[in-house]
Amino acid sequence: MDTGRIRNAALARKVVPADQAAALIRPGDTLGMSGFTGAGHPKAVPELLAQRITAAHAAGEPFQVDLWTGASTAPELDGALAAADGIGLRLPYQSDPIARQKINAGEIDYVDVHLSHVAQLAWEGFLGPLDVAVVEVSGITEDGQLIPSSSVGNNKTWLDLAERVVLEVNSWQPAGLDGMHDVYYGTALPPNRRPVQLTRPGDRIGVPHLRVDPDKVVAVVETSAPDRNTPFSEPDDTARAIAGHLIEYLEHQVSVGRLPAELLPLQSGVGNVANAVLSGLQESRFEQLTAYTEVIQDGMLDLLRSGTLASTSATAFSLSPTAIADFNAHVAEFRDRIVLRPQEISNHPEIVRRLGVLAMNGMIEADLYGNVNSTHLMGSRIQNGIGGSGDFARNAYVSFFLTPSTAKGGAISSIVPMVSHVDHTEHDVSVIVTEHGLADLRGLPPRKRARLVIDNCAAPEYRPLLTDYYARAERGAHGRHTPHLLAEALSWHTRYLETGSMLPG
Amino acid sequence: MDTGRIRNAALARKVVPADQAAALIRPGDTLGMSGFTGAGHPKAVPELLAQRITAAHAAGEPFQVDLWTGASTAPELDGALAAADGIGLRLPYQSDPIARQKINAGEIDYVDVHLSHVAQLAWEGFLGPLDVAVVEVSGITEDGQLIPSSSVGNNKTWLDLAERVVLEVNSWQPAGLDGMHDVYYGTALPPNRRPVQLTRPGDRIGVPHLRVDPDKVVAVVETSAPDRNTPFSEPDDTARAIAGHLIEYLEHQVSVGRLPAELLPLQSGVGNVANAVLSGLQESRFEQLTAYTEVIQDGMLDLLRSGTLASTSATAFSLSPTAIADFNAHVAEFRDRIVLRPQEISNHPEIVRRLGVLAMNGMIEADLYGNVNSTHLMGSRIQNGIGGSGDFARNAYVSFFLTPSTAKGGAISSIVPMVSHVDHTEHDVSVIVTEHGLADLRGLPPRKRARLVIDNCAAPEYRPLLTDYYARAERGAHGRHTPHLLAEALSWHTRYLETGSMLPG
Repeated sequence: MDTGRIRNAALARKVVPADQAAALIRPGDTLGMSGFTGAGHPKAVPELLAQRITAAHAAGEPFQVDLWTGASTAPELDGALAAADGIGLRLPYQSDPIARQKINAGEIDYVDVHLSHVAQLAWEGFLGPLDVAVVEVSGITEDGQLIPSSSVGNNKTWLDLAERVVLEVNSWQPAGLDGMHDVYYGTALPPNRRPVQLTRPGDRIGVPHLRVDPDKVVAVVETSAPDRNTPFSEPDDTARAIAGHLIEYLEHQVSVGRLPAELLPLQSGVGNVANAVLSGLQESRFEQLTAYTEVIQDGMLDLLRSGTLASTSATAFSLSPTAIADFNAHVAEFRDRIVLRPQEISNHPEIVRRLGVLAMNGMIEADLYGNVNSTHLMGSRIQNGIGGSGDFARNAYVSFFLTPSTAKGGAISSIVPMVSHVDHTEHDVSVIVTEHGLADLRGLPPRKRARLVIDNCAAPEYRPLLTDYYARAERGAHGRHTPHLLAEALSWHTRYLETGSMLPG
Repeated sequence: MDTGRIRNAALARKVVPADQAAALIRPGDTLGMSGFTGAGHPKAVPELLAQRITAAHAAGEPFQVDLWTGASTAPELDGALAAADGIGLRLPYQSDPIARQKINAGEIDYVDVHLSHVAQLAWEGFLGPLDVAVVEVSGITEDGQLIPSSSVGNNKTWLDLAERVVLEVNSWQPAGLDGMHDVYYGTALPPNRRPVQLTRPGDRIGVPHLRVDPDKVVAVVETSAPDRNTPFSEPDDTARAIAGHLIEYLEHQVSVGRLPAELLPLQSGVGNVANAVLSGLQESRFEQLTAYTEVIQDGMLDLLRSGTLASTSATAFSLSPTAIADFNAHVAEFRDRIVLRPQEISNHPEIVRRLGVLAMNGMIEADLYGNVNSTHLMGSRIQNGIGGSGDFARNAYVSFFLTPSTAKGGAISSIVPMVSHVDHTEHDVSVIVTEHGLADLRGLPPRKRARLVIDNCAAPEYRPLLTDYYARAERGAHGRHTPHLLAEALSWHTRYLETGSMLPG
């Protein structure tokens, strides 16, 4: 255990075994935990809390907590607590398979909130008091300030608001992270808000460390455990084709003078397609790009190294084990070009609008008119959540939504007559991209959008069905502005639920 | 005719009869016209243009224009051009009955855009070049600057971007308007955007007059005609009840410390319910409130006079004939407390978020889970458009959506299982209010929202039907996060289209 990480004497005296820290959490508590996309979550206390909860339940005692985080965490946090039936209410985002199953069984109350809204909601007090913050840090300075770890998320807010604070000091996190964070302490509730004076993605407007009232710290726990680092898989042909259409489009926009040569700050969702876009950029002629995004993935490190990316701002890392090793070995060379911020700043509507972010997010399905569903399978079953996609899409300069044109081996079309849930309305979706092509919907009335989406984005086997629906809707709809036949607008989804395929038998 | 309104010699020499100005507009031109909510639109040229178009069509010649404005205009603009089949594409908003009919017949291409996005889209060049600006002003200064009239809208953008400019100088507009406007010339396309340094609704950050390159002015037309001033009707019991619930809620939020005593800046949509809210505030104990909104209605003048409202910011007036007479007689006493801005500033995401606006907008329908439809009747037929409601709701501190619980004498329920079109997603809707009560949906998972919406907001005759749908959905849905039965989620709408009522026979 690298005890050199805790350099403040008063807080060093509060070091206890993790089970002792977990014992300080009471049934009914609301917990604000660190963690964003599997980075920087507490590694020890949650699992021991889950064990306490299981024991309590076995003894017939009720024990649940409400759980707030930055975003998704890891099996040892969301997974363990969900498996123990320990979560009453969960917000603002999660992606754990066990938690997802319990949410869709109606056993966990899940509030799916824009990530930039969480701090504001908590500060307003509407969500009720925050009892305990459980926050991972990578170290504590002599004067008791906290060196953040691999994500910042909502940690500033949790530390400020919580009645009691448990710190996990994780010596697995590279010491070289220190200096990479920019914690902005200038936020306030209205009417006391001031302009956030950030005009370039790499600007630093805050301080490198988090503050905590030492009197609130009830326990410090030492850990040395890795983040949830998912191995990176090479993009498949579909993802590569999606990336190709997007990059060709960006090149074209530059050539006609609608975007500058170094583009505008990129926001990129997480996952296979996003990774393919990053790989594609690596092979493109673009250079000196910037990113203003949530998460730094493997591909971004390569882009920074090659100079394709000049600098990047995010709130968390999400690296593979290979990339982590590389990052740890070369942290000094990245430090000046990476800024990690609280998620209320990384996703701030004011900044996203000002910088003119090019927002690139995945989705589950889009419809003929450009409405996008990012969260629900067949209208009712939540997959993960909206995350930051709304923060970026709504205030972006151009908002792209990317997806393979089909799922489940072709049984599901990602382009449907009407989406079964709307997370991004027709007003907020600029461009839809699948492996078949790209549809720029801006400035088009709904009927012209429909033709473009069918022709450019739908899978060939679904195109005649969409064309048929659209043609009949144009003749039979109650109005021809956005032609729909409501009795069959959602029939593709019900057919899938009944037969296992959206294609008619 | 008050020729004293044109005090610049060079521009005075360009005065021509209106038909001569209309003759400068060519088939296929894209026109940027002034006008916002029936205020400040050109009064003479559009109707004469419509006559030219009608004559051309009678002679078998094609003649259409694309029409961009601030928002809605008046019968002599949208109505006349639509009746003449003179509009190819229309954006970003309209509310004219003739234009609406042609849009829903598929004869006019209508692009329904967030009002704060229009200037950005036009500047980016994606919408193509702007050929002619036709802008009403209330006067021209000695040095050729333009004194805006009763709306600012997108006029700055049209004047800057258009190749040719036609000015209508309307002496009906009160001379006392001069000094009330604040035209901000600091906007830019990214990456050159800077923070908009506005921190209070009444701040002035620009200049009082619009600029125009005199060489681009091809005609100046003198008019003396009123805005589309709709008489004010007293709120009915339903509107009064909605306002009552809202104001009681605001008082409660103040009492529990979630809002300051003088609230936060109010944004208020246009119409009967909005007027009732303003009347209700007049009778409340609130004082020294502020407004950061789009449109100044009758009720706001009363609030300013009584001191309930300290100051207000908007982009346009929408006053009744009585209120206009009052305003004209007392313009000096209002001048320091009213600021009229370009709509890209009145609706700016950055400012709406910073000020923490309380956004209050009407709607067509909401569903069990808090998704809101503001634009489409039965999914396909557009009513008006999203206007600024998305600009405000998405970045507001609290976003309220208000509506009577039924329409068409009870044949339509405003609370439905699933909305037939989504303009504001569950993530952006805080509070729903009908005459029956109020549902604060923040921090609630979908299933708890459903119970609250049914119990508090739905009309009594629809409550058992909603409860029945919800109960069956909870049992039978593909997932219990957001329980829906997709085969009947839109059946209320299809029933209405088939039988004339959402109630089963």
